[in-house]
Parts: sequence; C-alpha cells; structure tokens
Amino acid sequence: MLVFENDYSEGCHPRILERLVQTNFDKQVGYGFDEYCDSAKEKIAAACQKDVDVWFLSGGTQTNRIVISNMIDAYQSVVAADMGHINVHEAAAIESAGRKVQLLPHVDGKLPAESLKRMLVDFYADDHHDHCPFPGLVYISHPTEYGTLYSKAELTALAEVCREYDMPLYMDGARLGYALACPDSDLTLPEIAELCDVFYIGGTKVGALCGEALVFTKNNTPSHFLARVKQQGGLLAKGRLLGIQFDALFTDGLYEKLGAHAIAMAVKLRGIFEQKGYEFHLNSPTNQLFVVLKNEKMEQLRPFVRFSFWEKRGETHSVVRFATSWATLESDIDALEKLL
Amino acid sequence: MLVFENDYSEGCHPRILERLVQTNFDKQVGYGFDEYCDSAKEKIAAACQKDVDVWFLSGGTQTNRIVISNMIDAYQSVVAADMGHINVHEAAAIESAGRKVQLLPHVDGKLPAESLKRMLVDFYADDHHDHCPFPGLVYISHPTEYGTLYSKAELTALAEVCREYDMPLYMDGARLGYALACPDSDLTLPEIAELCDVFYIGGTKVGALCGEALVFTKNNTPSHFLARVKQQGGLLAKGRLLGIQFDALFTDGLYEKLGAHAIAMAVKLRGIFEQKGYEFHLNSPTNQLFVVLKNEKMEQLRPFVRFSFWEKRGETHSVVRFATSWATLESDIDALEKLL
Amino acid sequence: MLVFENDYSEGCHPRILERLVQTNFDKQVGYGFDEYCDSAKEKIAAACQKDVDVWFLSGGTQTNRIVISNMIDAYQSVVAADMGHINVHEAAAIESAGRKVQLLPHVDGKLPAESLKRMLVDFYADDHHDHCPFPGLVYISHPTEYGTLYSKAELTALAEVCREYDMPLYMDGARLGYALACPDSDLTLPEIAELCDVFYIGGTKVGALCGEALVFTKNNTPSHFLARVKQQGGLLAKGRLLGIQFDALFTDGLYEKLGAHAIAMAVKLRGIFEQKGYEFHLNSPTNQLFVVLKNEKMEQLRPFVRFSFWEKRGETHSVVRFATSWATLESDIDALEKLL
Amino acid sequence: MLVFENDYSEGCHPRILERLVQTNFDKQVGYGFDEYCDSAKEKIAAACQKDVDVWFLSGGTQTNRIVISNMIDAYQSVVAADMGHINVHEAAAIESAGRKVQLLPHVDGKLPAESLKRMLVDFYADDHHDHCPFPGLVYISHPTEYGTLYSKAELTALAEVCREYDMPLYMDGARLGYALACPDSDLTLPEIAELCDVFYIGGTKVGALCGEALVFTKNNTPSHFLARVKQQGGLLAKGRLLGIQFDALFTDGLYEKLGAHAIAMAVKLRGIFEQKGYEFHLNSPTNQLFVVLKNEKMEQLRPFVRFSFWEKRGETHSVVRFATSWATLESDIDALEKLL
Repeated sequence: MLVFENDYSEGCHPRILERLVQTNFDKQVGYGFDEYCDSAKEKIAAACQKDVDVWFLSGGTQTNRIVISNMIDAYQSVVAADMGHINVHEAAAIESAGRKVQLLPHVDGKLPAESLKRMLVDFYADDHHDHCPFPGLVYISHPTEYGTLYSKAELTALAEVCREYDMPLYMDGARLGYALACPDSDLTLPEIAELCDVFYIGGTKVGALCGEALVFTKNNTPSHFLARVKQQGGLLAKGRLLGIQFDALFTDGLYEKLGAHAIAMAVKLRGIFEQKGYEFHLNSPTNQLFVVLKNEKMEQLRPFVRFSFWEKRGETHSVVRFATSWATLESDIDALEKLL
Repeated sequence: MLVFENDYSEGCHPRILERLVQTNFDKQVGYGFDEYCDSAKEKIAAACQKDVDVWFLSGGTQTNRIVISNMIDAYQSVVAADMGHINVHEAAAIESAGRKVQLLPHVDGKLPAESLKRMLVDFYADDHHDHCPFPGLVYISHPTEYGTLYSKAELTALAEVCREYDMPLYMDGARLGYALACPDSDLTLPEIAELCDVFYIGGTKVGALCGEALVFTKNNTPSHFLARVKQQGGLLAKGRLLGIQFDALFTDGLYEKLGAHAIAMAVKLRGIFEQKGYEFHLNSPTNQLFVVLKNEKMEQLRPFVRFSFWEKRGETHSVVRFATSWATLESDIDALEKLL
Repeated sequence: MLVFENDYSEGCHPRILERLVQTNFDKQVGYGFDEYCDSAKEKIAAACQKDVDVWFLSGGTQTNRIVISNMIDAYQSVVAADMGHINVHEAAAIESAGRKVQLLPHVDGKLPAESLKRMLVDFYADDHHDHCPFPGLVYISHPTEYGTLYSKAELTALAEVCREYDMPLYMDGARLGYALACPDSDLTLPEIAELCDVFYIGGTKVGALCGEALVFTKNNTPSHFLARVKQQGGLLAKGRLLGIQFDALFTDGLYEKLGAHAIAMAVKLRGIFEQKGYEFHLNSPTNQLFVVLKNEKMEQLRPFVRFSFWEKRGETHSVVRFATSWATLESDIDALEKLL
Repeated sequence: MLVFENDYSEGCHPRILERLVQTNFDKQVGYGFDEYCDSAKEKIAAACQKDVDVWFLSGGTQTNRIVISNMIDAYQSVVAADMGHINVHEAAAIESAGRKVQLLPHVDGKLPAESLKRMLVDFYADDHHDHCPFPGLVYISHPTEYGTLYSKAELTALAEVCREYDMPLYMDGARLGYALACPDSDLTLPEIAELCDVFYIGGTKVGALCGEALVFTKNNTPSHFLARVKQQGGLLAKGRLLGIQFDALFTDGLYEKLGAHAIAMAVKLRGIFEQKGYEFHLNSPTNQLFVVLKNEKMEQLRPFVRFSFWEKRGETHSVVRFATSWATLESDIDALEKLL
C-alpha cells in the first residue's frame, strides 16, 4: 500500500532516535530546564537571527490554544480566515478556552490585509463596539490549510495593519518547514521572526515524533508562561523529549533538508499529475497537492494508495489530497505514477 | 427631542409599577420561589397552551449565555446566522462560556432550514468530524436582528431538521411581543412553544424594567437549573421583581396590547416614510424600520430626533433605524412626520 | 407569620418606588449611561470622599464573578477564608469563570492578615511555585458570612500585605450598610474606599429591589469594563433601574438610615435573647443573630416564625439565624419576644 | 552528582527506544488509531482482567483536566484531599477548565471514606444546596502526594460511598507502578479496575518518555471523547508514540519489573536511613522517602546529591524527599550511603 495520506504517517527522522538513545541515561532536570532544551533554543534563535524566546509544546492545537487564550484578554477575540485551522479543525479548542474566533473570508486560504483593515476601520467606527467582540490578535497559518503561502509583501502588509491596531500577529507554522523550503516562497525564517509577534515552528509534521517550537519575537512572552502552559496540560515532565528533537532538527540544517526533500517529492509528483493531464483544485506550491479525480479513478486507486478525500466536485469528480513529507520515498512516487 | 432610537428608552408600563407598589411589603421567599413568580409561570403556560417550565432571568445576553452553555456539551457548538445577535452584539458572551458559535449566511436576517440541513449532511459525511466543532443546538431570533420574521413554514422546516439531528431549537425572543402582534406573521405563541425546544419571551424591550421569561417546552430543563443560573450570576435574591413584572404583562392581555401598540405605530411611521418617497433598506414588518437617508438629511434631523445609525450606503446615503415601542406616543410620530 | 429569615423578604424602600414612578417616562439612553446613573455615581463618590469609578450590577454573585475573573489573570487565584461566600454559597461561580479560590482558615468568619502573609511568604519561598496556583487577589466580605466585622486595624493590616505583594484587596459588601451602621465598627466608608482596591456597596440586601454598586478606588477599572460586564450577562439595557435605586439610597442619607434601623432592631432582639438566657453561637454585632435553640423550642417556633436553620449543635440543640433588616417592624420584634 | 530528586530524571527504558527504532518507518494512521495503540490497549485490558476502554494522553495534569472537566457537569465539583495534586501542584488546571475542587482534610495524604460520607450527608441535608457547589466526582491519587497507599478496605469504602451517591471515583495513578509493586500493598490492578470508575496508569514517572494510559472501567467513556481530548490540546497526531511505549511497558511484565526495581531500591535506602538513625517525616511505603535532616547535614549533602526540599521542621531541621525510580542504580545507593 502506498501512503500519501498526510505528513505524519511515520515516526521521526533517525537522527532524532539516535540522539534519544545517546542521551537516554543522562540525568536532567524536568519541565524543559534540561540542557537539550537550552541548546535547541539557542539554535532556533540563531536560525531566526534574533534574540527570541522559545518554548516547546507537544502539538499544534495545544499551542494555538495556549498562545491565543493567553495573549488576548477575556473581551477580545482572534481574527482568522474562515478556512483557518482553528476555525474548522480544532474541535472548538479556542472557544473552549473562552475566546471567540472572528472570521473573514479567505482568499486561497489566506487572510488578506485589506479585509483585516476594513474590518478594523468598521469596528472602531461603530459607537457601540463595546457590545461587539473586540479584535485582539490575528491568526494565520503558513502554509495555509490549502498549502498556499503568504508572500513577503502580503505578510508585511498584515504586520503593518496589526501594528497600527496594536494587535499581535500569530503564525501557525505546523508545516513551516515545507513553506521555508519552497522555491516559490520569498519569505525566510528571520523575516518571519521579524514580521510576526509570535509563531511556531512545526515539528510533528516535519520529522519529529511530536512537538512544536513556539517563538515569541518581541520580548512579549506572557508572564509566568510556564504556569500557563502547565495549567492547560501542555507541560511535559520530561521536557528533554522535545528539546532533544528540536536540537537534532536544528543541527546541521536537518530541518531545512527535511523540508527540501518533501518539496522535491511534491514537485516531482505535481509534474506527473500535470503530464498526465490531471486538473488541480488550486495551485498549492507546498507539500500538499489537491487534485481533481474522476470518481471511478478515485475508487480504482483506493486499494493501492492511501490519500485524503477533500470534497466533491459535482457528481462525477472529487478533490483529493496527496501529501508528500520528509519521509516520502522517491520509489513510492514512481510506483504511484504507474497507477495514475 | 424626539426619541426613536430603540425600544428601551422608558421605564416600564405603569401597571407594573402599580403592582410593585401594591406588593412591596409582602414578605416572600427569595430566589424566584415567591407567589408572584408562581402566578406568572402559570399565566405564561396558559398563554403557551402547554405544560411548559418557565424561569425568569434579567436580560437577553444573560439568558442566551446560560441556555446555550448549559444545553450543549463541551464539544458541541451553537449554529446561528452570521447576523445573529449572539455572534455580533453580545461581546463574545457565548464563547466566554466555552461554546463556539458556528455561522451560516443569513437570508434577510434569518437562518434557512436548507442551509442548516446541508451543513449537517456535510458534517456527518466527513470521516474526521471528531476534529471539527459539533453542531449541537440551533439559535435563531424572532424577530431577527433586522426585524424580520420567520413564517410558520420556515420555523417548521427548521424544527424538522433539528429533530432529525436531535438538536434543540432555541429562539431568542427579545422582541417576541412585536413579532406576535405583527399582522403579517402567521406564528402564534402556542405554535412557537410547540416548534421550539426552548425560547424566551422578552420583557426588557416590551414594557418591563428588566427581565426575560425563559420557557422550556419539552420537559427538557437542564438538571439543577437554579444552580446553573446562580453560577453564571443570573439569580436575583428578590425574584419577585421579575415575577411581578411578568405577572402584570400576562394579565388581561397586556403583553399583546403593548406589542400591538408598537406595531400600529410602526405601520403609521412606515406609511409616512413611503408616502414621502423614502427607500427602505429591507422590508421589516415589525417595530424597527431601516430607512435610507441622504447624509445631509440625516445630519439635519440629528438635533431634533434620536435614531440609530446602522451603516453607510455608498458615499452619499446612510441606513438608519427608527424603532417604535410599547411607549411610543402618536404625537411623536406626527412631530417626526413634519421633520421628514 | 413572623419573618426573620433573611434581609431580602420585602420589596424596596418606598422612596425608590416613588422615584421609579416619577421618572418612568423620561427617555434615557441605555446601558447605564442615563442621567440617574450619573447622579448616583457622583453621590457615591461623594460618600466615599474619593474620586472613585462606580458601576452598577444586578446581584452579588454576578459582581463577585465579574470582578474576580477580570481583575486576575488565568494563572492567578483568589485567596479567601474557607467560610467565604464565594467558596461556600455561590454555586462555584468563580471557578466556572476559570479562577481558583484558594482557602485559608477563617477566624470568626474573617481572614487574618497574618495567615495571608504566611501563605505568601511560603508560596514565594517555594522554587516550584510555577506549578502552584498563584495568589492574585484577596477576597473578604464585610460583614462576613457570620455577620462579624473587620476592625480598622485588621483591614489596614490586610491592605498592607496586599500592597506588599501587589494584590488587589476586594471587599464584598453585600450587607455593607449594616456594617457601617454598627456602633461597634470603627470603619467608615471613606476608610474602606481608601484601604480596598475595589469593593461593592450592597443594594439588594439593604433596601433595593436589586443591584450592587461596584467601586474601583484606584483608577484600576479593568479596560473595556462595559464589554466585560456585557460578556458575563451583567449589563441591563435599562441601566436606569439601578441608577435610580442607588440615587435614592444615597440621597438624604437613606442608605445610612436603613442600616441604622436594622442594627437598632438587632440590638433590641439581641437584648431579648440575652435577657431570656439564650446562648449565642458567636458574637455577631450586625443584623444577623446566630442563636442556640433547644430542638423542641425550634420546632415549637416554626409554625409562627420563619428563621434560618444554620447547623446542629450536638443532638439536642441547633444553631439558627434570625436576621433583621431595613424593613423589620418593631412590633414584629415584640411579637417574637412573646414567643421566646 | 548523585540524583535522587525525582523519578523522571532519565529518558525511558531501553526496550521502549528499541521499539521506537524498529517501528519507525511503519506507516500508521494518526491520532491513536495505529496498531501499536490497539495492541497496547489489549494488553492493558488483559492486565486489568476487564473489558475496559483505554486512551493514551501525554501527561498527568492534562489527563486530570480532561477527565474531570468532562466527567462532571458545570454545576458540579470534584472532591479531593487538601493535599491532592490537583489542588496544590497543577497551576489551577481544573479551575481553568471551569470546575471547582472541593477540599476535605487529608489523613496521611489520603481521603478518608468517612469524611466523604459526612460531607455528602451534610450537603444533601441542606435545603439551600442549589446555592452550593455540588460534589460530582471523587479524586484520589495512589500513591498519594506523600507516597502513601490506600488499602483494599479503604478503597472499597470510598467506592461504596461513591456508588451510594452516584459519583464516579477517579484515581490518579501517576506513580501507580510503584504502588502495585509495593509489598505492603494489598491492592492489585484488577481490583483497582473494579473499584474505580476511571483511573490512569502513569507512564511518565514509571519508565516512559511521556504518556499516561487512561482507563474507563464501566463503559463510561464520555461521548465523543476524541473530540474532547482534541479540544483541550491533548491529542497527538502521532499517537503511535504513546501506543508503542505502553505496548512495550505491558509486554513481558516490564511495567511490574520497573515498579519492583524502584521499590527494592527504596527499601534498601530506607534501611540505610533507619540504620543510621534518621527520622522519617511520615511512613511512606513507596519510592519516595521523606526524611528529616539537620540543616547542616542538608547543606553538607547538596554539593554531592540532588534531592527535593520539602518543608522546614522547626529552625534546625528540614524534611527532604529522596526518590528512587525504575532507573536508580544500586551503586548510587551505595554511594549515597557513604555520604549519610
């Protein structure tokens, strides 16, 4: 069975396992104060070219929930594109922490700076806005839910609106490695660290067993953040598990290499689909390809390939997602080619 | 100064004040167990022609928050039209109680049964729906935020979808008196009590000093509801204040008369606007009229009349709201006519 | 039937009703921006002899919930005596808003400054305190749950500890009128306004139909407090209902007179109990008397008097509470005397 | 440096690492639906000798928060000993999820069945209990915060009270392996699975990198539990990380062996302390020893041994904790002996 279902079907990059084995009996203090966490934080700060504050958490929804609920106040809400992950795929995690997600229509999965600006102008023009949810923070993901990317100009425009209205800009980088490795992208990690107030570098979907590196870029970590993480159940006693993984990912450019591999595999696979005349649902430059298949073709493939059904396209066709990852074998792409 | 700004500019109907004075030194038990609450509950049940369970709360947002957060579970959300009051004008009250508001596009302020059905079909067709917010309850208001009304057919269609999916249907009746009194409406109070699982009969905007009568229609009051109300700060020690008011409103058809008066005044005012060639933003049959004014006209009126600015209509015009109420004087309408 | 069950069995002082009647058809803006609220706020500030910020809310639990959840952050908790109202009689309202109540043993219903100090010293001495609830605000009530009072020295000591640790001191004054009127008390309203960071002046139990006046004393009102109140369901559209009541209570010393009457009645009643040789459960100087009755005596009284059962005292006796109020008739005390 | 500070200073048992390496490139579905989770669940059910429902979560506070907030309703609270971990060391996690922790005095760290019974009798005897927090679930830990253990008789008594009042009994088993291995304990895993309604088998502190196995014993898993876990940020995309670890721990009795080793080391260390005449703060039969040291002795040891300071004992002595674990080397005990 070929598997192109997602980017978290395997364990982790072998170098991570090696480091786990090598360090296993070192005695370390708990809760993220171990030396591997310290080392990983330094390496991430170096990669960001900035004096940032880094924390390690277990997963993306946990990170989004902890960041958002602690960076805005009770009367504020988080603004997101209607296709934002926090709105559609996180089981109402943000609301369960007491914060509203306010929606703007997405464009190719993205939140346009102009829409945000217009919303804020309208909000503050309304005399009765104390009865309305207050926009308090902006959430985006990069890549987006559709695998699309913000350009440097787009992210800069968002950041400018956010600064004008004194709202933090938060980037969910669950698949950031695949964005950074994308040849079409003109956004670097240091630029992201400059433009965003807070963002996370995804580990789970880019070669780690678990874990996300949360980066506060403006000396803006909420006070007593350890207590806030603990309170929401996000604190691991053996913080070393996360520190070791990110230390390995940020040693010798491993994180970049894993991203580059997934993108190379996606480029190859996209070429095959194009050559065979398949239509794309949208133009996604990263590791997720949204392809239109005839329903019969889809059923024909199912016994041999795992992929994700996305949505119906009329009565006769479907949109499906094929994802490559840090672990995708070129030979699997070749095998898939024969089935298409 | 003429005031058509809203329907809560005055105190309350004099009969309520009379009853407050008459009963003032009766010694009653607290927390809604007094005899006036009992009497009011019986009268409301009689008006509903159903063995319903009635509770009295202080205000609309409080009622919405207590009902919604207690009738659905942590993993569930409330479905509402995007123009729903709980989404736009309640300061994120529902989310602050941990529940997500899921949006569907409104049609004339209303939530169409077909949109709801489609959303539910799609939701349950998705294998990964455990990662998504679960639709758990449907919220509508009648009249809507735009003063429009559900027809009996529309409400029946919504109720059928709700029953098919085992979701309570909840009606916010902040201005229910004005809906019931509207000659264009084919929905009666007993029909609403039959079709909705829970709804409230608004007092604050229909002649009371404060208070809403919350009606559970299917023996479906959440267990220990008093504790739930207390917990959210909605329990008055002197429950008599609410009981006396609703007892007065449901004696000798007062609630109906107050509604009828406001509608008669609105009909008169609508006729004046029509006759003078004003355009309506939308066709609202209840006590709120949304009129398009030239900006100069709007400014010209301001020193003499209070109304609500609603939104811009291009560069030269504005939409404003004129509201009548149980307390509107016909002489004020005449005075306004001269200014238009 | 004689009623000494509590201090909220009647409606309100007749002067409040008069004012409601007089002002009923004045057209006012909503949500507490009316002229009666303005006037009441000025009078309360004058009574406090301080430039304070005053808000009107409907009830005590609502006030406690809104104040506490908005004055401390997610990782902080409120410190209270274990007999504190928020711990025992508010249906877990504080926790339902996400905040922990941390307990210290009460002494005569009060929170001793020394216990608080010791707790704080221990807390900050613990290296792992980021795993523990952070003391963030101190809650007291005056009178306490047992009707006892803080002396000026005791309140000053608490305030000093609070300032040393940068924690707001919050006083629940549900029955503040009865404390202020108590001859044994050396604490005045201006002193309370000086020593506390925030407190409320109870209306519901001191002659109003509903309502509490919340006072922020140090330019420390949480930002966008209207939105925060709205969000928790505490905002009345007709804010005038609260403004008018407090305006009446703070006109011509009415609030003081109501307090003084209740205390005079309590003094008389205490004298009767003493003279007849009854034992007191504790020495409460305000309007609540905790008396030890033989169980047979208690049963004998029940058909003629309503009082509150408090707790068992061994097998043969019980502690019961007799409360006087602003509305207690001297003739009822005389009638009770004959039954004792 | 010798380390007796806690039981989570090392990584994990080597067999877990072996399994992670062996399975690393197996392609598995996400979110705990992988074959290792399935296998681990079967093995745990077999060890419980019961058809239980098992879930894997990352850590103890996360597990406590998710279980408690989802097994009781808004108006209910969780009853715990005042020294319970959820009360003192979880940064108000339970309250941040909206639930109150109600306290009873501990006896040797434990919650006595009689105290619980008395509290419940008193609660239901009070007519006004709708104003009070409702006891909804009982939380205990085994071993307790002090390393003490419930006897079979004590746990049975608690379970009986819980059943009488229809409250789930929940056991936090963060260190359950050390309880089960303790020769003084008469409680087996199947008995715990019989007596408790829900409990968790701790992995983090008993040889895993992270992870706790949550066991529902009575077909009582909250509906849509996956969504509830996701919502609170507890769902790992690579659920295999937890499944593989518990599969290894429950293969060939590894979990029991790890527990037994820690207890054997604790017995040896206790013997040394006794022989050298040290006093114990309390009699803890598991892997945590609470020893009274002279302050000079304590300071003298610090450069050579890491242990946990617990509390002062007067001016001249201190209570410190020495913990053994699955990873403690006998040679380290010998080295410590020389220092004592």
